[in-house]
Amino acid sequence: MGSGLPLKATVNCDMGEGFSLYTMGDDEGLMKHIHLANIACGFHASDFSVMNKTVILAKEHGVAIGAHPSLPDLQGFGRREMAIEPDELKSCFIYQVGALSGFLKLHGVPFNHIKPHGAIYGQSSRSLPLSRALVEVNKVFRSADNDNDVAFVGIAGSAHQTAAEEAGVRFIPEWFADLDYSAEGKLLITKKHDPVPLETVRDRVMRLLNEKKVTTVAGTYLPLGDNITEVSICCHSDTPGAVEIAQLVKHLVDESNKAAGFV
Amino acid sequence: MGSGLPLKATVNCDMGEGFSLYTMGDDEGLMKHIHLANIACGFHASDFSVMNKTVILAKEHGVAIGAHPSLPDLQGFGRREMAIEPDELKSCFIYQVGALSGFLKLHGVPFNHIKPHGAIYGQSSRSLPLSRALVEVNKVFRSADNDNDVAFVGIAGSAHQTAAEEAGVRFIPEWFADLDYSAEGKLLITKKHDPVPLETVRDRVMRLLNEKKVTTVAGTYLPLGDNITEVSICCHSDTPGAVEIAQLVKHLVDESNKAAGFV
Amino acid sequence: MGSGLPLKATVNCDMGEGFSLYTMGDDEGLMKHIHLANIACGFHASDFSVMNKTVILAKEHGVAIGAHPSLPDLQGFGRREMAIEPDELKSCFIYQVGALSGFLKLHGVPFNHIKPHGAIYGQSSRSLPLSRALVEVNKVFRSADNDNDVAFVGIAGSAHQTAAEEAGVRFIPEWFADLDYSAEGKLLITKKHDPVPLETVRDRVMRLLNEKKVTTVAGTYLPLGDNITEVSICCHSDTPGAVEIAQLVKHLVDESNKAAGFV
Amino acid sequence: MGSGLPLKATVNCDMGEGFSLYTMGDDEGLMKHIHLANIACGFHASDFSVMNKTVILAKEHGVAIGAHPSLPDLQGFGRREMAIEPDELKSCFIYQVGALSGFLKLHGVPFNHIKPHGAIYGQSSRSLPLSRALVEVNKVFRSADNDNDVAFVGIAGSAHQTAAEEAGVRFIPEWFADLDYSAEGKLLITKKHDPVPLETVRDRVMRLLNEKKVTTVAGTYLPLGDNITEVSICCHSDTPGAVEIAQLVKHLVDESNKAAGFV
Repeated sequence: MGSGLPLKATVNCDMGEGFSLYTMGDDEGLMKHIHLANIACGFHASDFSVMNKTVILAKEHGVAIGAHPSLPDLQGFGRREMAIEPDELKSCFIYQVGALSGFLKLHGVPFNHIKPHGAIYGQSSRSLPLSRALVEVNKVFRSADNDNDVAFVGIAGSAHQTAAEEAGVRFIPEWFADLDYSAEGKLLITKKHDPVPLETVRDRVMRLLNEKKVTTVAGTYLPLGDNITEVSICCHSDTPGAVEIAQLVKHLVDESNKAAGFV
Repeated sequence: MGSGLPLKATVNCDMGEGFSLYTMGDDEGLMKHIHLANIACGFHASDFSVMNKTVILAKEHGVAIGAHPSLPDLQGFGRREMAIEPDELKSCFIYQVGALSGFLKLHGVPFNHIKPHGAIYGQSSRSLPLSRALVEVNKVFRSADNDNDVAFVGIAGSAHQTAAEEAGVRFIPEWFADLDYSAEGKLLITKKHDPVPLETVRDRVMRLLNEKKVTTVAGTYLPLGDNITEVSICCHSDTPGAVEIAQLVKHLVDESNKAAGFV
Repeated sequence: MGSGLPLKATVNCDMGEGFSLYTMGDDEGLMKHIHLANIACGFHASDFSVMNKTVILAKEHGVAIGAHPSLPDLQGFGRREMAIEPDELKSCFIYQVGALSGFLKLHGVPFNHIKPHGAIYGQSSRSLPLSRALVEVNKVFRSADNDNDVAFVGIAGSAHQTAAEEAGVRFIPEWFADLDYSAEGKLLITKKHDPVPLETVRDRVMRLLNEKKVTTVAGTYLPLGDNITEVSICCHSDTPGAVEIAQLVKHLVDESNKAAGFV
Repeated sequence: MGSGLPLKATVNCDMGEGFSLYTMGDDEGLMKHIHLANIACGFHASDFSVMNKTVILAKEHGVAIGAHPSLPDLQGFGRREMAIEPDELKSCFIYQVGALSGFLKLHGVPFNHIKPHGAIYGQSSRSLPLSRALVEVNKVFRSADNDNDVAFVGIAGSAHQTAAEEAGVRFIPEWFADLDYSAEGKLLITKKHDPVPLETVRDRVMRLLNEKKVTTVAGTYLPLGDNITEVSICCHSDTPGAVEIAQLVKHLVDESNKAAGFV
C-alpha cells in the first residue's frame, strides 16, 4: 500500500472547446466518464452558444463545473505565451469566469473550480505574481452557492500551490494521465496529444492512486509527496481514444475512492 | 403642471466604450452628472481592462451600474443589424452580462439594469421574440444583491415594454435628450451624434418632466402617456458638449424629482 | 440532347474553412476531385496559417484558386445576414481578397475567381448595389497574372449576373449538387447540409449537363437558359459523403467536357 | 560637418491606427509632414474601412505607403510580446501585407516598405530567425510596381539589418525623434509617449543629420556608424504635440537633404 494518507481522486476534462460551427473532442462521449468539467470561456475556444450547450450537457450528467479561462488568443487556441501584467490577467479571468457564471445562474448549477488553460497554465505555474493574480479570481467567485469555496486546479509544488495556500484558496493538484513526465517530474507539454496505450494509462494511474508515485519517462517513480491527499487526473479530449482512456481512469478512480472510503 | 402622476426621472449614459488603447467620450467628466451607467461588455466596445476601470469609476461616483450588451460586432461598434435567433441572442447577452457581473462581484457593487446597445436596441424593440429572449436575461441576474430586481431600459410602447411586462421584469422607458423624434414620435437614430444647443435640451427636458410630452421635429408635442411614472433620460457621451448637456439634464432632473418629493 | 450550345462545367468547393486548431471538411480528400477551390479568407473561417496550408494544397493538385470572402462574422461562420453599406462591403472584400493574393504571390500561383460566402452570397444576389460593390473588387484584382480576368461565381439571373455583366466582369453561374431547388428554381439554403444519395446527385448532374435543366423538389425540371454556356457545380465539404459526391460529379463533368470537345 | 558620406533622411509615422469608430492620432494633420506612412493592417489596429480611408489620405498627400503589420493582438494594440514560430509569423505578415496591397491596387499606388509594429518590432530585432521570416515577406511583395524593391524599416545593427542584408532586401535604419536612447544607445520603448520639447527634438535631429550621432539620456553622443547613409526618423502620432514635432522634423530633414544635394 502507498505512503501515508489515502489519495482522494477525480477525473477532469477540458470541455466545450468548440467554436462557431467547429467541434473539438467528443464532449457527449466524455461527459459520462468524468467528475469535473473545465469549461472553455471564449478566449481560446468556445462562444456563448457553445458555452450554453456545454453547461447543459454537464448538468445532465451531474458533472461538477469549473471555468477554463485563457489568455486572449482564439487564433492560437491559447497555446502561445504572452507578456501580460498580473492586473491585466486578473481582469481577463474575471471577465471569462463571470461570463461562465452567467450560464451557471441560468441553469441553476453551482460553480466548482477554476483551471487556467494552455499557455497561461504553464506560464502562471512559474510566476508567483501571475498565480497570485489568478487566485484572487477564485476568491471573487466564492459564494453561498458553492459553500464559499472555488478550488484552484494546478500544478503541485508550483507557484499555483504557493499562491493558493497564501490566499486560503483550496488547491487541487492535477496529474495528467495522457502526458509524460520527465525524469525530474516535470510535465512534458506537447502541442499535439499522442496516443497512449490503455495499459500504460492503467499502470500510471494505479501507481499514482496506490503508491502516490508519478511515473517518469526514465522508467522511475517519483513520490507525489505524503501531504498530498487529493488529486484530479486530467484526460484530454483530443488524445486519440480519449473516451476509452477517460472511462478506464474514472473506473480506477471510483474503485480507489470506494476502497479508501471516500464515497 | 403636467398630466396625472408626477414623473420620476434619472439620467443614464453609455459608459466604458473605449477598447484597447482607444477612448470614447469623457467618462470621468460624465460620471459626475448621471444616475445610471450602462457599461459596455466587450461585444461592441470595451474589454476586460476597460470594464474593470469603468466599474471602479462608477462605484467611486455612487452611480448605479447596468449592463450595455450588444450584438457580437466590435468592428461595427454594434451598429449593424444582424440576423440572430432569440436563443442565440439570449446566450449572447448571458455571456456579456455575466462578464460584467464578475467585475461587480470584484468591487462589491450591485447590478441594477440592462439596456441593449445600438442595433439590437432598435431591432429588439420591433421584435417580440427577441425582446422576450432579452428579458429572460434580466430574470437570470435577479438576486438578493439587487432586491431581486434588474430593470430593463428600453423604448416605451415597443416590444421591449410588452416583453418586460409579460415577464414581470421592471421596465424603465428611455427618452433621448440629444436625439430627435419624428412627428409620429419615433426616435431618429443617427450614426453620428450632432451638436444640440443647451437651450433646446433644456426646453425638451422641461417639457418631458413637467408635461410628460415629447418634442418632435415637427415642433409638436406628443403625450408620453399618463401611466408612465418613470423615465430615464439618455445623454450620449459622443454628442459634442456631452458633459455640459449631462450636467444640465441632471440638474433639471434632480430639481424635478425634489419638487415631486421623490428624493 | 440538350438545348443550344454545349455546357462547359467545373466542380468547385469551399476550402480552407478550418481555423486555429479546428478543421472543417476533408480538404485533402476533396482537393483531388475539384477544378476550383474557393479559399476562405479569415472572416468567416480560416486564418493566416490555414490559408497558407490551403494554398499549398491547391497548388499541389493544380486546382485553380479563388477567394471566398465573407461578412466579418467568425463566430457565426458568416451565415448571419448583416446590415452593411456597399462601400463598407467593398473594403471588406478588398481586404480579404488582398490577404489571399499575398499567399498566391508567395506560392507563385494565379488568382482565378471570387465567390462570396454564406449570408453575403444570398444577400448580395438580391441587391444590385451590393453586387455592384462586389464586382468592383474583381476588377481591382485583374492583372497580367490572370490574363486580366477574375471571374465572379454567383447565382444565374440574380443581381450577381447583372452587376458582373454591367462591369464587364466574367460571370460563372453556380449550381449546387448537394442542395435542393424549389419548384420556382430558387436555391434552398440550409444551415446543415443533409446527406444526399449518390444516385440523386448523378441524375441531377446529368440532367444539368446534358439538358441544361435544373431538377426541383417538385420533381419538375426548369431550363437553365439557352444562353448559359458555362456552369460551376458546387459540392460542399460538410455534406455527408462529400468526397464521394465530389469524385462522382468531377467524373461526370470531365466526361461531359470531353464529349463536348472542351478539353 | 559630420562623418563620411552625407545622410539621406525621411520622416515616417505610424498611420491609420484607428478602429471601428475609434480614432488614434491626427492623421490628417500629420500626413502633411511626413514622407513615409506606415499603415496599420488590422491586427493591432485598423480595419478594412480605416485602411481604405488611410490609403486615400496618404495618396492625396503624395506620401509613400508601407505596411505596419503586427502580432495578432487587437486588444493589446500589438504591444504584448507573444511566443510565435517564424513560419507562423511569416504567414501572419503575408496576410496583413496582402490585405494592404489590395487597397494599394484599388487606388493605384505603389507599395514602398514594411515596418513591423510594436512588440514584434522589438522581439524580431533580437531574433534572427524571426527577422529572417519577416524579410521573406518583403521579397514576396517586390514587383514591377515598386522597381522590385520593398524596403525593411528597422533597428540598425539588430537582427533586422542582418536578415535584410542576407536576403538582399533594402534596409532603412530607423531613429526615433520622440523617444530616448540609453547611454548604450538602446532605444527606450515606453507604453505611453511622453511630451518632448521642440528644442530637444531640434537638437537631437540636427546632431543626427549633421554629425550622424545619437543623443543619449546620459548626455553623450554615440556615432551612428560611418557606413549608414540613410535613415528614417519616426514621429509617433500619440506623442503630445505630434503634429508640431513632425512639422519641425520634416523641415529639418528637407533642408538637410537639399543641402546634401539629395533632392
